[in-house]
Amino acid sequence: MSKYPLSLLKLIALLKKFPGVGSRTAERFAFHLLSWPESQLRELAEGVATVKEKIKNCPVCRCLVDIHTCKFCDLSQRDSKKLCILASEKDVFAFEETGAYQGLYHVLGGVLSPLEGRHPHHLHLESLHKRIQTSGVQEVIIALDSTLEGDTTALFLKEQLKNMPVTVSRLAFGLPMGSSLDFVDGGTLSRAFLGRQGF
Amino acid sequence: MSKYPLSLLKLIALLKKFPGVGSRTAERFAFHLLSWPESQLRELAEGVATVKEKIKNCPVCRCLVDIHTCKFCDLSQRDSKKLCILASEKDVFAFEETGAYQGLYHVLGGVLSPLEGRHPHHLHLESLHKRIQTSGVQEVIIALDSTLEGDTTALFLKEQLKNMPVTVSRLAFGLPMGSSLDFVDGGTLSRAFLGRQGF
Repeated sequence: MSKYPLSLLKLIALLKKFPGVGSRTAERFAFHLLSWPESQLRELAEGVATVKEKIKNCPVCRCLVDIHTCKFCDLSQRDSKKLCILASEKDVFAFEETGAYQGLYHVLGGVLSPLEGRHPHHLHLESLHKRIQTSGVQEVIIALDSTLEGDTTALFLKEQLKNMPVTVSRLAFGLPMGSSLDFVDGGTLSRAFLGRQGF
Repeated sequence: MSKYPLSLLKLIALLKKFPGVGSRTAERFAFHLLSWPESQLRELAEGVATVKEKIKNCPVCRCLVDIHTCKFCDLSQRDSKKLCILASEKDVFAFEETGAYQGLYHVLGGVLSPLEGRHPHHLHLESLHKRIQTSGVQEVIIALDSTLEGDTTALFLKEQLKNMPVTVSRLAFGLPMGSSLDFVDGGTLSRAFLGRQGF
């Protein structure tokens, strides 16, 4: 690969840092960029350079916002009695897509993972406690991944919240919509069985 | 998707223009960029903005160069009797990787494809003729893809070069190295049979 011009090599090295992008794909991206019109290249360059300036985390809920007020914290639009705890900013948008929830959000900024060095002090827990104590939140919904780390974090949160005047729930586990029993793994099936509902 | 901050949406739309990148991947890239350090974002932005300024096509062979002289045209290093015709700038590097060729290159800038509106005047043919007439090239190697468009362009070039004092050859077709006959398609197998060599 040392035969590419130096500035192309540098660009390829940076593009390789994208998730799931290897050498071949990064090369393809770089050569594709060479075919873009100048104006579009400038647009992308500006977008990349300013993404962190323009997009901030709301200091209260840690959701991503690009305006001064956070629409997810706007009490005239949202139900202040419910608070949904999520791991990442991206999950907020997945939740909003469903249209099923109108309450508030709190982004933890990750899940606990001692092996990867993510401990309680890395999560936005202090602000969570303060929010629950000072605002009128009555129900906390834990919406974390159904992974080992997600489960650990959920149990940790349950422990932390047990003396607070809120009901704590977690997202239901069960069959994904449209799934066939043949293709569902045993773990999911047993959770679906344990969580069976009157019909 | 309308729930993302506007500047994030714009960035996602641009990242979606990369080859093989859909909405989901572009979103993943954009969120990943948010986790990059500022310095790295600036580096990528600069790389993208200046890629076309820094990397030029050599006016003679159309290969990519980022310095003033083209190393692929350097007659003290290369065999000026051989000229290899390629479709794109990227192919030059694939060829160089092999280390099997020391001659000159000529990048056509594409292959003929009437359906996609690529006709002979879109290719760098005039400069090709001039090069063959004025320099001491004795052998021309056509190294185009083994596709319908590649075959058409190779036949077109053969016709164009037939009255010139050069021998014209094309890359061999046959079994890829390490392949098993089970997995080779009929077209490849029949070309390998037709091109069989004394052993």
